[in-house]
Amino acid sequence: MVSDCKQIIFLGDGMGGRPLASLEGRTCLEAQDTPALDAIAAGGECGLMDPISPGVPAGSDTAHMAILGYDPFQYYTGRGPFEARGVGLAVKAGDVAFRCNFATVEDNVVKERRAGRIKEGTDVLAAAITEAFADGIDGIQIIFEQSVEHRAALLLRGEGLDHRVTDVDPHQDGVEVHLCQPLPEVADDPAAQRTARIVNEFVQRSHEVLADSEVNKDRQARNLLPANAVLPRGAGTAPHLQSFRQRYGMNGAMIVEVDLVRGLGMYLGMDVISVKGATGGMNTDEIAIAEAISAVWREYDFVLCNIKAPDLGGHDSDVEAKMQAIAKVDRAIDYLLHKLDWEQTVIMVGADHCTPISVGDHSGDAIPIAFYGHGVRPDFVDKFGERSCATGSIHRIRGGDVMTIIRSYADRMEKFGA
Amino acid sequence: MVSDCKQIIFLGDGMGGRPLASLEGRTCLEAQDTPALDAIAAGGECGLMDPISPGVPAGSDTAHMAILGYDPFQYYTGRGPFEARGVGLAVKAGDVAFRCNFATVEDNVVKERRAGRIKEGTDVLAAAITEAFADGIDGIQIIFEQSVEHRAALLLRGEGLDHRVTDVDPHQDGVEVHLCQPLPEVADDPAAQRTARIVNEFVQRSHEVLADSEVNKDRQARNLLPANAVLPRGAGTAPHLQSFRQRYGMNGAMIVEVDLVRGLGMYLGMDVISVKGATGGMNTDEIAIAEAISAVWREYDFVLCNIKAPDLGGHDSDVEAKMQAIAKVDRAIDYLLHKLDWEQTVIMVGADHCTPISVGDHSGDAIPIAFYGHGVRPDFVDKFGERSCATGSIHRIRGGDVMTIIRSYADRMEKFGA
Repeated sequence: MVSDCKQIIFLGDGMGGRPLASLEGRTCLEAQDTPALDAIAAGGECGLMDPISPGVPAGSDTAHMAILGYDPFQYYTGRGPFEARGVGLAVKAGDVAFRCNFATVEDNVVKERRAGRIKEGTDVLAAAITEAFADGIDGIQIIFEQSVEHRAALLLRGEGLDHRVTDVDPHQDGVEVHLCQPLPEVADDPAAQRTARIVNEFVQRSHEVLADSEVNKDRQARNLLPANAVLPRGAGTAPHLQSFRQRYGMNGAMIVEVDLVRGLGMYLGMDVISVKGATGGMNTDEIAIAEAISAVWREYDFVLCNIKAPDLGGHDSDVEAKMQAIAKVDRAIDYLLHKLDWEQTVIMVGADHCTPISVGDHSGDAIPIAFYGHGVRPDFVDKFGERSCATGSIHRIRGGDVMTIIRSYADRMEKFGA
Repeated sequence: MVSDCKQIIFLGDGMGGRPLASLEGRTCLEAQDTPALDAIAAGGECGLMDPISPGVPAGSDTAHMAILGYDPFQYYTGRGPFEARGVGLAVKAGDVAFRCNFATVEDNVVKERRAGRIKEGTDVLAAAITEAFADGIDGIQIIFEQSVEHRAALLLRGEGLDHRVTDVDPHQDGVEVHLCQPLPEVADDPAAQRTARIVNEFVQRSHEVLADSEVNKDRQARNLLPANAVLPRGAGTAPHLQSFRQRYGMNGAMIVEVDLVRGLGMYLGMDVISVKGATGGMNTDEIAIAEAISAVWREYDFVLCNIKAPDLGGHDSDVEAKMQAIAKVDRAIDYLLHKLDWEQTVIMVGADHCTPISVGDHSGDAIPIAFYGHGVRPDFVDKFGERSCATGSIHRIRGGDVMTIIRSYADRMEKFGA
């Protein structure tokens, strides 16, 4: 059975959450006015989705893998390779890739993990690092590139490396920078030990390089936190993933703001479309993103879109920021509701994971979702939110069910049996 | 724990669907007046069921396998063996079996895949084919038998065969008859190549035999489409399935209209009961079917019943036909509601898959179901339909859960643990 029905997955990153006393027991999503999301819920089929399985907090990478139908338990080899690919580094088999933050470090203690969410000058900082490590470390080539805001990627290339090493990033402020070490199960492995030594030398020497940078002297003069350290984490090697086209027989595009997810899209051979004004920050231009979907909608069978802003509010435990970000998602959806032909389109609106204000990080809470458009049987839900969607007729699915369900609505699934 | 409680699974084939603008946004099931089904819902426990898993369109064969607790991913080897068994052919290990249609073919193009749903004379056509291939093809025995309406089965018996070959049936009108070929993964396999050659010769020679038949000359004289070709599909070999009695310790019967499902029942060692008036068509006698259940109800622990008519309306995208077929299911249920002792019976009413009018084929949509009778905890649903059942307390289950749940209601499940 093959149809021309288009499929869209639209995710507000980390958009789900938990009830807050300050919102009279409502979540941010429930408290924010979201007329377009509510229209999706009212005209669609609602439910809850566990990206991995109930209670498991998903990363953005594992969640997107699962939702796109690639079981992360089978395929996930760490965040680093996606991040590196997403910023344009061509990761090769055997390379060890890390995701990194530019951070503010004083006396080996992490003062601020994101260097005040530095927005400008990281290209200059990255160039300084590249120059400093032009000769590599111990025969290993060092490849480093900046990404959005405080994010960056590090690639180690050469013989005798192993990705099974710990994070340098301690994942919280006010504590010492961690030493990179082999994971316990490979504590005595020479390649893992060597990889850890190289990472530690990179962290130490790059700290010296960055401290001397004009960018940081200028930031300090303006009372901004200096981006004087690089904290690698999420070591991994390139996974072997069947392409999106091979798996589904469809051409797919990604319009996403996070290099990590862009990298996944590139691995899957999807077209990763850049949008002017899509900053990945709170100031992103959600209408430009929606316009981009509308512009390519006829060209592709499938588009995945992710707006990052709600996740930022969640990580910062900033209620107002998260609610404004949700309003952004709502405006993008409103644009699509008016622009696309819903006789030949089906969309799933939701999130990749919850990032509750009260947690300040990804949680294992189930995510509200709604399917809308072609093939859908609208249920009785009329508001988009955690508790309202939970009463819908989708009930509770997993990320791994999404591609099957959305292709079924689009009449793109092959019958199993006769 | 062993009780005498009887268990019935009653399926309206393809009975679920999608909303239709012509029915003011209701499905056929929601629009048709169904007092008996509504009584089942009101007095029972409702929910949704995915026969295989969410979004996967199931065949009648794989759906019935799953609902009877035989995982089709583990056991399914193609439709042919069930179809052949269902028409009374004793498939042996190594035999390659095909499901076939009598079709109307002109200049090698399929004019009508079902020869106008031919109802009479296929026994004569089958006898002509049997005679023509009395000597077999290339040392392989050819066994052919007609089934209901345009359906038939073909069996190849002999050394050096392989079931991994493509369909001759192109599954649509107006295109050329396909050549049977080895599947790509066994393109160079001599047994698969030989099997394909034999099938192609059978198709060519049977076309010549049928064109000469008096049955077809008579049909053409009456302006009916001639059944002048046989289109095999769904090649498979006999699966090894544990008998129903061995698996469940119960004696089971099937009262079904489709040979495909009858064949499955025979494989499982269930008693497959024929009912006079059960035609498998729109004119089937639903009261005769309900009477048959009532007549054997005391003899069997378990009865599975399937009325085919709703699926026909779905495949033909005929709203009126599908609604009338649903009314037939409702009258059969009404009969059972009045005849059986519900203190010692539990029934699940539902479907094997959805066949929406708007799709004209099986879809991956979830199926409305209701359990009623012994052991059930009635919920708040009072109408039987896709959206109403979705609000019931069964929530969303899979076909593979059904036998466990219904045996649990019947107090026939062994305790796991102590």
